[in-house]
Amino acid sequence: MFILFTDFGVAGPYLGQMKAVLLRAAPRLPIVDLFADAPACDPHLAAPLLAAYAEVAHPGDVVLAVVDPGVGTDRRPVVARIGGRWLVGPDNGLLALVVRRAGGAVDAWEIAWRPPRLSASFHGRDLFAPVAAMLALGQAPPGPPIDPATLDRPAWPDDLPAIVYCDTYGNAMTGLRAASLPSDAMLIAAGRAIRRGRTFADAAPGTPLWYENANGLAEIAVNCGRADRELGLRPGACVAVTAGLPEQIGKASV
Amino acid sequence: MFILFTDFGVAGPYLGQMKAVLLRAAPRLPIVDLFADAPACDPHLAAPLLAAYAEVAHPGDVVLAVVDPGVGTDRRPVVARIGGRWLVGPDNGLLALVVRRAGGAVDAWEIAWRPPRLSASFHGRDLFAPVAAMLALGQAPPGPPIDPATLDRPAWPDDLPAIVYCDTYGNAMTGLRAASLPSDAMLIAAGRAIRRGRTFADAAPGTPLWYENANGLAEIAVNCGRADRELGLRPGACVAVTAGLPEQIGKASV
Amino acid sequence: MFILFTDFGVAGPYLGQMKAVLLRAAPRLPIVDLFADAPACDPHLAAPLLAAYAEVAHPGDVVLAVVDPGVGTDRRPVVARIGGRWLVGPDNGLLALVVRRAGGAVDAWEIAWRPPRLSASFHGRDLFAPVAAMLALGQAPPGPPIDPATLDRPAWPDDLPAIVYCDTYGNAMTGLRAASLPSDAMLIAAGRAIRRGRTFADAAPGTPLWYENANGLAEIAVNCGRADRELGLRPGACVAVTAGLPEQIGKASV
Repeated sequence: MFILFTDFGVAGPYLGQMKAVLLRAAPRLPIVDLFADAPACDPHLAAPLLAAYAEVAHPGDVVLAVVDPGVGTDRRPVVARIGGRWLVGPDNGLLALVVRRAGGAVDAWEIAWRPPRLSASFHGRDLFAPVAAMLALGQAPPGPPIDPATLDRPAWPDDLPAIVYCDTYGNAMTGLRAASLPSDAMLIAAGRAIRRGRTFADAAPGTPLWYENANGLAEIAVNCGRADRELGLRPGACVAVTAGLPEQIGKASV
Repeated sequence: MFILFTDFGVAGPYLGQMKAVLLRAAPRLPIVDLFADAPACDPHLAAPLLAAYAEVAHPGDVVLAVVDPGVGTDRRPVVARIGGRWLVGPDNGLLALVVRRAGGAVDAWEIAWRPPRLSASFHGRDLFAPVAAMLALGQAPPGPPIDPATLDRPAWPDDLPAIVYCDTYGNAMTGLRAASLPSDAMLIAAGRAIRRGRTFADAAPGTPLWYENANGLAEIAVNCGRADRELGLRPGACVAVTAGLPEQIGKASV
Repeated sequence: MFILFTDFGVAGPYLGQMKAVLLRAAPRLPIVDLFADAPACDPHLAAPLLAAYAEVAHPGDVVLAVVDPGVGTDRRPVVARIGGRWLVGPDNGLLALVVRRAGGAVDAWEIAWRPPRLSASFHGRDLFAPVAAMLALGQAPPGPPIDPATLDRPAWPDDLPAIVYCDTYGNAMTGLRAASLPSDAMLIAAGRAIRRGRTFADAAPGTPLWYENANGLAEIAVNCGRADRELGLRPGACVAVTAGLPEQIGKASV
């Protein structure tokens, strides 16, 4: 199974052209769009999102992860292998948290292969998709092994205190894993102190709450509302973590 | 064939994760996105839309219908079988009109099965998709039979006088079946009396008309324009039905 | 492989219903969404886009090209065969540039076949998809041969000096093939004279540039920005081509 994590957008010609390459090479393998609207051109925001959702991949699957503002420059194209899963994409930090969370159980390669025709702006189609197909068909990564530690970005935190994605309902995912937060933690976002809940009904209508989403991230929502619009949240917005005295924090932050 | 009717949005990680579950269980079965942007969290508006479009399903197909604001509460997950077609989803009225229009020819079951891991917010992935796969693979519904009449919502009208969907062209579908309306019926929407036409050319440019859409619903459009923007229509907006004297009605409504 | 080029939108029920028809007839053939948001109802803008992207199709593939404002009128439905590739769609100019660029190596047919049920507004599902499936399965076009030259629109230029598409990053594709422009050509759009670059880094942050995109079209972008918003570009906006003296042109156009 191919799993696509990109910022190409659901519309337009990019996803389709990349899928055409995969389908010509491996017509029997399913393709799943995991994210087509990952944080655009922003590996720093996309990395915790990918790390949270890459669990969709099973051994043998190939994750095509392409958020690639440096396309056409000399940034390395790479392959990583973690627990039998392949990841293919640019070496710009996008894989940093996936790699770190794997501990040492990572192998990595630089992609040395180049296609006969390589556009300056669409390596997803021209470079990464053909390599993903090679891997899915059982071929070896087309390039030399590299030190997996070089894929990490040591300066990037394990959990990113920022909004990384707003979904169709207006819920705002953070780059924080809920399991990494104290059970009574509150999130401070848009000047509001936000309590934890389990379901929307734990907050009064019109009131924000945060909860552990279905992939383990701390996510902010407004019961019967849209957190993105009502709190002014969007990818990149900062989030802080605190505990206790929500009323005082709430006042202080106004 | 799996047919997906959801409010998950075309972007983001929800459709993809649900499809990954279906594809792992039944990799040879095609998946069709019928609606990924059904009225969000609103089974009342979504029910007539589903009833009009469920005809896409053929015997043996499985319709996954997930508009599920009560996810995580005690609302029942259910299966219905109508004319050899399976429907899987929450028992919140979403299936009400499909069931009613089938007359008595419906079987229904409550889903008693639960997965090893059931998130609080994503039963589409964790509960409904695995059950849909079971049905597609020929297994029996994993739970006890129930009275199909309990899936109906007797207080909901056969035809809903409201906008239920605005499409990419700005055309506004109502929850009214065109065949249920008098041939000279006019629709009153946004304070305008709107005449029936067969094609756009039956109205002057910039003028609204309504017609029977390709799935039998009465749909409002503006010739050479966008009905959603120009008339201020969006899902939930009320529509009334009348007949005769359009000029007077038009004046009265201004 | 089926390749879909439509203005149906990625959301809503149109693409899915068309795919259901294809999948029932030819369940083993992959379907690729090339564009689902081609210029809405505008074959004149869509034709150069289709001509640039139809290269995705290989011999044996069927391109379903449906931008069809005349659906329900007497415009002809047609089939073209170019280099072993099939194209199916309305005869409204959408295929004009694909046909012209093929020189004389085109065969064409009118679709005389009609389905038992033909809606007035959705020939993509009712007429074009069934015919596409026939062709993919090796059947002959269901109708008489016609003169391919009648598919062309002689009054339409080889390269269209207008924006034809704005992508998810805000980059604005023109209907001009980069290879048809002088190497020092500048584009005038939104009153700005825009120089050519190879990658975004060739322009200062916040500054527009144009380059040859991955499918050969001249495309306008703003480094670290969105050309659509910052320059006010959208499909249909005019573009002019000039050379030399950019500063003076820039001044004159302000």
